[in-house]
Amino acid sequence: MSPSNISVKLVRNVASGAPTLADFKIESTSVPTKESLQNDQILVRTLYLSVDPYMRGRLSGAQDSYVESFVAGKTLFGLGVGVIEASTSPDYKEGDIITGDTLKWECKFIANARGFTKIPASSGISPANYLGILGMPSFTAYVGVVSLAKAKAGETILISAASGAVGQVAIQLAKARGLCVIGAAGSDDKVEFVKSLGADAAFNYKTCGDLTAAIKKAAPNGVDIYFDNVGGEFLDAALANMNSFGRIAECGMISQYNATEETAYRVKNLIRVVPKRLSILGFIVSDYYAKPDYANFITEVSTMLKEGKIQYKLHEIVGLENGPQGLLDLFEGKNFGKLVVKVASDAQQRL
Amino acid sequence: MSPSNISVKLVRNVASGAPTLADFKIESTSVPTKESLQNDQILVRTLYLSVDPYMRGRLSGAQDSYVESFVAGKTLFGLGVGVIEASTSPDYKEGDIITGDTLKWECKFIANARGFTKIPASSGISPANYLGILGMPSFTAYVGVVSLAKAKAGETILISAASGAVGQVAIQLAKARGLCVIGAAGSDDKVEFVKSLGADAAFNYKTCGDLTAAIKKAAPNGVDIYFDNVGGEFLDAALANMNSFGRIAECGMISQYNATEETAYRVKNLIRVVPKRLSILGFIVSDYYAKPDYANFITEVSTMLKEGKIQYKLHEIVGLENGPQGLLDLFEGKNFGKLVVKVASDAQQRL
Repeated sequence: MSPSNISVKLVRNVASGAPTLADFKIESTSVPTKESLQNDQILVRTLYLSVDPYMRGRLSGAQDSYVESFVAGKTLFGLGVGVIEASTSPDYKEGDIITGDTLKWECKFIANARGFTKIPASSGISPANYLGILGMPSFTAYVGVVSLAKAKAGETILISAASGAVGQVAIQLAKARGLCVIGAAGSDDKVEFVKSLGADAAFNYKTCGDLTAAIKKAAPNGVDIYFDNVGGEFLDAALANMNSFGRIAECGMISQYNATEETAYRVKNLIRVVPKRLSILGFIVSDYYAKPDYANFITEVSTMLKEGKIQYKLHEIVGLENGPQGLLDLFEGKNFGKLVVKVASDAQQRL
Repeated sequence: MSPSNISVKLVRNVASGAPTLADFKIESTSVPTKESLQNDQILVRTLYLSVDPYMRGRLSGAQDSYVESFVAGKTLFGLGVGVIEASTSPDYKEGDIITGDTLKWECKFIANARGFTKIPASSGISPANYLGILGMPSFTAYVGVVSLAKAKAGETILISAASGAVGQVAIQLAKARGLCVIGAAGSDDKVEFVKSLGADAAFNYKTCGDLTAAIKKAAPNGVDIYFDNVGGEFLDAALANMNSFGRIAECGMISQYNATEETAYRVKNLIRVVPKRLSILGFIVSDYYAKPDYANFITEVSTMLKEGKIQYKLHEIVGLENGPQGLLDLFEGKNFGKLVVKVASDAQQRL
């Protein structure tokens, strides 16, 4: 008898307030077979699913959210890693490991063969890492520090939101390259965490007073690279501290995303771009998966991981049936590290 | 008997008002010989001298000007082209053609062997062109359009101050590469001139009303490259019209150079840099003379010039003794085209 399939479905949308276990149900479903594949489809065995804060938006059922909503009665979906058991697509073959943001919360499922990224087969590393240190936020850090800013030993890099998913990896990639690393974060705890990751200096941008002076104090020789996650006033202060030929890896401007025409911060120090020969380089990580940078990133960070030279906390929950509880725990901040659900058993994890 | 040397000297500084011929004197001086060279010096025969508006500042005698003043009783100096007749420097040899901004207004002179750029020997082109179409403003256009923005056929380029020394060459380099060229200039006459150089569309930024709308009208498919000479509000309007993966060659922000902390324009559209993956690339042309870009520029533009495929007006005055009158004519706008003084005779011009 073939093992039954398990699916996590939404019972009802939760517009506001805390969701509960009763808002989800675990269903036994039939096991999909390769015979039921239509053209250009893949049969996926789910290995790991990511549990992320943005999923609260999906639970709400709001149609105007920037993420697609979960639908009552349907299976949840999100970031995950799986292995292909069968394929009718020329782009994928049995055994390929894939990651993407439309993996179903189901042990096995059939999907159209689009929107997934093949990840290089690696040895000795749990595929869970592809949702963490080898995942999108880390690759974002790599693209900014390495591909765009072309960080060199001896340079000084300033990183805002340095304790975040991107920032903490940017710190470690820069330190590994011999840079002097300055981190800015929004609480004293986060500042301590940033220092524990190897930053040479760090400060609390909410309590430091004048930002330009705070950066100057932390980086008295000036800033060669600014990894911007926040934009606005902090970007302006960074511009005032840039050295000649400085590069700004422009990853995000979260301080401005809710701004209106009236409240948007207006940048005054852009005039420094010419005399200082600065480059401001906007990027979106998804443009880089098809470039050699991605394989270089996986190779470098996998090696650092195996050698214990990079820190990243994973919090593993075992069993898809425990996924909803993991999500509730996340909303209450009970996790310590990146939360993932291990769906396949150890035996099934073997790639 | 060896021919005597001629030198143009300043009689008195002219703080304000129109200078007259009486403010200059033409002196016969002794001909310098290679025997009088000290270590690391060059003996230069002047071929052409440039007559430029910025020289008014040098005449004033003000100590706080951004350019070094001319001194009463001393020889004038400025941009020029010369040929080396003798050298005690390992960097220069007899026959080298040099350009720089410290050439003396003298037929022959001795200088320390620093601050000059060697220019490639060219065939069939007057060295006067090195003060014009092969000079610094043109190379600035090349660096922005080619080296930094990497202009490609089919793209749309927007150029501000398009009728200026840099802009008019940027237009022609972009057209030669098959781009759609949009120029902005500050008078209707200048707009006509911009169109006559081949721009597909041009508008008067002083009378067009809303800048963002004016750019959108001129470039309905958006802007791939913005060659910025002005900064400020125009830059903001350009940012609002940039296509994905657009590049801004940041050459200058003349609209902001006299701004104070209070009057400086504050940029609101910088937030587009991330979602549109824009690059803002500040540069100063002097960083590029030592790169292969310079030889590539000379080769490309010399060829265009010989083939009649690039326009650039030169206004030649013959004889160093007529230099002061040329300067006065410039201040009255009597020149039509780039004003240069031909110092050496045709026979002496042979390189």
